[in-house]
Amino acid sequence: MSTPPTGSVSSSALAEADEIAVQVRRFVEQEAAPRHADGFDEHGVRPEVRRELQDRARAAGVFAPTAPIEFGGLGLGIVDQVPVLEAAGRSLLGPQALNCAAPDEGNIHMLDVIATPEQRQRYLAPLAEGTARSCFSMTEPAPGAGSDPSMLRTTATRVSGGWRIEGHKWFTTGAEGADFAICMARTGGEGRTTEATMFLVDLPNPNVEIRRAVRTTDFSGVGGHCEVYYHGVEVSDDAVLGRPGEGFRYAQVRLAPARLTHCMRWMGAAQAAHERAIAHVAEREAFGARLGELGMVQAMLADNEIDLQASRALVRSTAEILGAGGKARQESAIAKVFVSEAVGRVVDRVVQMHGGMGVSEDTDLGWLLSSIRPFRIYDGPSETHRWAIARRLIHQATANGRA
Amino acid sequence: MSTPPTGSVSSSALAEADEIAVQVRRFVEQEAAPRHADGFDEHGVRPEVRRELQDRARAAGVFAPTAPIEFGGLGLGIVDQVPVLEAAGRSLLGPQALNCAAPDEGNIHMLDVIATPEQRQRYLAPLAEGTARSCFSMTEPAPGAGSDPSMLRTTATRVSGGWRIEGHKWFTTGAEGADFAICMARTGGEGRTTEATMFLVDLPNPNVEIRRAVRTTDFSGVGGHCEVYYHGVEVSDDAVLGRPGEGFRYAQVRLAPARLTHCMRWMGAAQAAHERAIAHVAEREAFGARLGELGMVQAMLADNEIDLQASRALVRSTAEILGAGGKARQESAIAKVFVSEAVGRVVDRVVQMHGGMGVSEDTDLGWLLSSIRPFRIYDGPSETHRWAIARRLIHQATANGRA
Amino acid sequence: MSTPPTGSVSSSALAEADEIAVQVRRFVEQEAAPRHADGFDEHGVRPEVRRELQDRARAAGVFAPTAPIEFGGLGLGIVDQVPVLEAAGRSLLGPQALNCAAPDEGNIHMLDVIATPEQRQRYLAPLAEGTARSCFSMTEPAPGAGSDPSMLRTTATRVSGGWRIEGHKWFTTGAEGADFAICMARTGGEGRTTEATMFLVDLPNPNVEIRRAVRTTDFSGVGGHCEVYYHGVEVSDDAVLGRPGEGFRYAQVRLAPARLTHCMRWMGAAQAAHERAIAHVAEREAFGARLGELGMVQAMLADNEIDLQASRALVRSTAEILGAGGKARQESAIAKVFVSEAVGRVVDRVVQMHGGMGVSEDTDLGWLLSSIRPFRIYDGPSETHRWAIARRLIHQATANGRA
Amino acid sequence: MSTPPTGSVSSSALAEADEIAVQVRRFVEQEAAPRHADGFDEHGVRPEVRRELQDRARAAGVFAPTAPIEFGGLGLGIVDQVPVLEAAGRSLLGPQALNCAAPDEGNIHMLDVIATPEQRQRYLAPLAEGTARSCFSMTEPAPGAGSDPSMLRTTATRVSGGWRIEGHKWFTTGAEGADFAICMARTGGEGRTTEATMFLVDLPNPNVEIRRAVRTTDFSGVGGHCEVYYHGVEVSDDAVLGRPGEGFRYAQVRLAPARLTHCMRWMGAAQAAHERAIAHVAEREAFGARLGELGMVQAMLADNEIDLQASRALVRSTAEILGAGGKARQESAIAKVFVSEAVGRVVDRVVQMHGGMGVSEDTDLGWLLSSIRPFRIYDGPSETHRWAIARRLIHQATANGRA
Repeated sequence: MSTPPTGSVSSSALAEADEIAVQVRRFVEQEAAPRHADGFDEHGVRPEVRRELQDRARAAGVFAPTAPIEFGGLGLGIVDQVPVLEAAGRSLLGPQALNCAAPDEGNIHMLDVIATPEQRQRYLAPLAEGTARSCFSMTEPAPGAGSDPSMLRTTATRVSGGWRIEGHKWFTTGAEGADFAICMARTGGEGRTTEATMFLVDLPNPNVEIRRAVRTTDFSGVGGHCEVYYHGVEVSDDAVLGRPGEGFRYAQVRLAPARLTHCMRWMGAAQAAHERAIAHVAEREAFGARLGELGMVQAMLADNEIDLQASRALVRSTAEILGAGGKARQESAIAKVFVSEAVGRVVDRVVQMHGGMGVSEDTDLGWLLSSIRPFRIYDGPSETHRWAIARRLIHQATANGRA
Repeated sequence: MSTPPTGSVSSSALAEADEIAVQVRRFVEQEAAPRHADGFDEHGVRPEVRRELQDRARAAGVFAPTAPIEFGGLGLGIVDQVPVLEAAGRSLLGPQALNCAAPDEGNIHMLDVIATPEQRQRYLAPLAEGTARSCFSMTEPAPGAGSDPSMLRTTATRVSGGWRIEGHKWFTTGAEGADFAICMARTGGEGRTTEATMFLVDLPNPNVEIRRAVRTTDFSGVGGHCEVYYHGVEVSDDAVLGRPGEGFRYAQVRLAPARLTHCMRWMGAAQAAHERAIAHVAEREAFGARLGELGMVQAMLADNEIDLQASRALVRSTAEILGAGGKARQESAIAKVFVSEAVGRVVDRVVQMHGGMGVSEDTDLGWLLSSIRPFRIYDGPSETHRWAIARRLIHQATANGRA
Repeated sequence: MSTPPTGSVSSSALAEADEIAVQVRRFVEQEAAPRHADGFDEHGVRPEVRRELQDRARAAGVFAPTAPIEFGGLGLGIVDQVPVLEAAGRSLLGPQALNCAAPDEGNIHMLDVIATPEQRQRYLAPLAEGTARSCFSMTEPAPGAGSDPSMLRTTATRVSGGWRIEGHKWFTTGAEGADFAICMARTGGEGRTTEATMFLVDLPNPNVEIRRAVRTTDFSGVGGHCEVYYHGVEVSDDAVLGRPGEGFRYAQVRLAPARLTHCMRWMGAAQAAHERAIAHVAEREAFGARLGELGMVQAMLADNEIDLQASRALVRSTAEILGAGGKARQESAIAKVFVSEAVGRVVDRVVQMHGGMGVSEDTDLGWLLSSIRPFRIYDGPSETHRWAIARRLIHQATANGRA
Repeated sequence: MSTPPTGSVSSSALAEADEIAVQVRRFVEQEAAPRHADGFDEHGVRPEVRRELQDRARAAGVFAPTAPIEFGGLGLGIVDQVPVLEAAGRSLLGPQALNCAAPDEGNIHMLDVIATPEQRQRYLAPLAEGTARSCFSMTEPAPGAGSDPSMLRTTATRVSGGWRIEGHKWFTTGAEGADFAICMARTGGEGRTTEATMFLVDLPNPNVEIRRAVRTTDFSGVGGHCEVYYHGVEVSDDAVLGRPGEGFRYAQVRLAPARLTHCMRWMGAAQAAHERAIAHVAEREAFGARLGELGMVQAMLADNEIDLQASRALVRSTAEILGAGGKARQESAIAKVFVSEAVGRVVDRVVQMHGGMGVSEDTDLGWLLSSIRPFRIYDGPSETHRWAIARRLIHQATANGRA
């Protein structure tokens, strides 16, 4: 067994998180990874395997690392999450087992910040405890809100004592079987002036039609990336999450940390694949040498290590800003772009180092490559982030120039 | 409908091939592409769909473009194959429909060059006519012959009146259901001095065990990438393809053109995907503009066009060397590395331009991305080719220096 | 001595051009390359060295390969120029010696196509014969015409019997010491409707102020990249090159072939550097091996060879379109982007393979790296070309869709 | 004026260093940057400009940020150096002005760790105070010690009361005019068993011949990258720095921090260039838009910001390991490779965004591009580091596997 990477974890302040990460890693390797064979069906993670692994995670004391302590979580802050969620991500079943997978993990964070006391008890508590599942219903098919939220077409209109939601969403991850949805709807304005509100919608609901789970190249979640129709769904006023008209602002609350936790989990997956490649090339021979003695293989190994260390360093420094109360919009966009592209390169090189075996069923590397590909698209394609990063740079420079 | 790319086809000498390419393109778009929905099962192309499409291709006069005229093929030389096989590759069913898919297409070429008159009638004729299928049994699992042919472990030993073959192969593409295998076996020497011989082995054969079709990320062929055991298979002397001890030399005969035809077919797949991306971004809007007006999208379009034109130019110039009787070892290695990497980039950018849709079942782009990935590994990984290219450069310079 | 690369030259039609290329290569290596030490001063190529080398080129029968035969040139068509101009470019003095350097070479071509019989005698003849030098005065400093020609601010207005030119140019390469300028000026319209005309302006001229030779990272020409003011320069009607208002169309006549000849010359420079790297790594040792046996070095060698072969294939296929009478706007833009980026990568890798020596005065590789860098900017930056390439793709697809 | 980048600096622990960085930045912008015009001659920084700027830096309280407090420095630890040396590097004159340039800065650190009390007074004190200059004489021309230290050919042999040094070095940066050299010589063993010792050699010395300052593409230092001959230089026993035979170990003491401080300074240079590009594209128009509104320009801006933030994060996390007493061999190699390549990409993109101006004398960007290029070679080429990184990964995995 190889030891965990320690390069980026140097400060004594991280000691406790590091210790948890070691336990998580052990749990994931011993409990989650061996279930790859029976853990998935064509819809993603099998719910019963998920439940079983969650019970074991509770027993092992590693359950819900990001959830509030009052609901049984470990209550780790974003900085401490870095090594822990990376360790969880080493198996695609790990985050499910630990209840720190998307979208529940991001919803837990957002509810923790925004929800009313009643909403905390009713929605956050069971979510944190793993007895409920949730989904986040924001993305719409063209010509609705995709990368550009101002194109939001789902509406919520005032009705007596509440709201009526009408709209069409997709990539509502985990909708099938979820206990509730957080649905983003337009409640005013248009285009750049659009005002949006988030609603808590109990599921199943007769007017919420889950048309299908859209099969994608990745699925490692539970409940599918769903296409959902809201057919005049009526909800009462206390279904408004936080306050009306604050939907986009709340989305930001969810956004930056959710980007980072995605990065952490995928770094774990890529790091685990990297270690398998190291082991492979240390063993396998060709052309009279071990693969690991060939310069082009060494270059791939080194580039993987560089990509992963740079990813970790960016994620950690961004987490520190968030942890200190910053918004880190720019930094989290930078981290998301860099890490999503870096982990994709890493897994691609790991496949290449495995040769024909790497694209065959004799490893699950082809599956990992397909699974990690959408990360360059989900949560905003790289191009959208680059555009936003550049705009902020120019805006900031221009603002400084005028000052 | 968009017109075929004509940039790289300028000479009047190509006029006839271009005309065939137009017909092939029409056939593929009208007959093959619509069968994507029912043409595949988990083992690859469904044999009955293949047969049906082959009948239609015969009727359309586009069947077997690379096969000898005497057996009903169009007898196109390697230069003329460039536009035609690209057109065929626009659908993954196209090469099957036209009987110009690997491995049969490469085997047809090799048999045409090497086979004895009897072998021509018995093996080449039905293969060219599409009444038989074949496989090429060279690659072995580690520690056997993969990238490094000198590691060949399958042996053929002299027995009275013939040979006895003992060995273990994998990636014997198309073995399941094939009518014969061309099996490479060591018949002398060791390591760098290894001598190999090719044998024609009729299938099914009680001593040839097709253990499994190895599922891979790509499968668009028929008959699987098989793992095959040769358990003391006895063959007579006339099963030797060409002459004993010439196996590696014959593999070279097959190799360079087979590399190029792979490139042609995948260029077609990538070109078709590129055209879909152009159509998509010309329509779809975001951020107040059509996607196609956004600079980063334009950069992806342009890079795709550049990659494809450079691929085509390299393939054509290499085909001209082969067509003129050259061996083009260096040039075909260069073309293979460049094209396999270029078409992978192209499809990856096409996926990216399609956003969430690009990794969903609503397009088959995710499947295409998985299918094209192994081309950087099959027929020699990029690293092996780079090593060979560099060695030849140094060797040539040193030889010149001494002269 | 190493032999010339032959990979891309396969057709017998090229036999004569290839033979000339061999002579040019020999001339450049024996006559031009040894003058690197004394051939340059801070303004570029020393005029007396240029003259001397031109005399030797005449004697060797390799002078003016692209100029019309009637004026003593070799009259090679664009396809035949490919190997010959590549051979010339192997030394930065080569194109000067052979009178096939920018901007004269491009001007010779344009005058050959456009000039009136009188202009042919007066301007083209001495230019082709090497007794005159010229410059092409189009680019303007911001906010004038740079990448975007519609921003042209230099004007020519009607005066009795002629025109009066007023304007400010820069990057008028070779202006200092030139015998005439071809000056592009606005003669009507504005923005997208701008009409431009080309004028032949004799130099020196009291109203043409050559403010300075702008020093740049590259300079390997003669006469500097000049900043030029046209202070009400009056010219007669017969100074109009071709017809008034056709300036932009004529620029296209010059553009596509000029892009290609730039590519050819720089391919030669990069190929020569590549060969030096091969020789270097075949000799030099580190870590107990020759550098050329190290995988990462081999990867650089192979990538250089791939970049150069793909460059050559693209240039040749584009030349064939031009040679057959096509405009090759798209293809020449593609070739320019690909080759300018490829040769830059090649030289960068050559520097890297030479280590500290590569950035020291003990080689001229650092100087070559600086000299080749602007090629990604001159004649349109890569970004402008990518934008144009993408626009044409979308335009063509949309036009096809409507048809 | 734009504000300093604050993204990576979040912790209150860095508050003091950040404040110093602000002062350094102000000093560099107001005092050092304006001297670019007269600060350099063909040999590098002009010594009198350097002295003058050092006086001003003393007056401004920003002198010698890395030197021990006892000798008048600011005594910043490696973590605090990150923002301060980045600020210094914003002008190529900054590090000279602040006495934190290579090689003196690295020698100060090494002497601080290794020197005997007498050596501290005699060599370290004046070096820290800026009254003496030093050089580090390790690299040898082929076939001596370049990337591979085991090839060390300079020898020191025992003579009565001391040692006699014989050898040939180059890239002894700053030798011309230095007050002493630290010379690495073989004092035992051979090949992999080579033992080396460092010697303090006073300069000028009749037996130390400074043959020439090797002109390179970069020179922004003082005293040239010199080629030096040690013609039987005799030194006494107290010229041994630290202890005999420990030369390679001491080189490691110097190496990791010196790599990082190089990264810091070049990050500053790249960041300053990046800010200039932002300002440029926010102003300049083409094709009817500001450059900064064009997607391909935005992509370059974003990639520059990503490269710089990732560089900073890697450097900081590596500095934290060093600061906590770790050796950070792997991490400092990773940082060196990543940062040297990233800052090169940044400056290249800045040049591209400036178009023709970017390669002209109207900016110093071409000069900056040439200056930053060697960083991918000096202190070990990227390839050597990648090889070492990969070897450590395999070694560690294998060691773990055995455990």
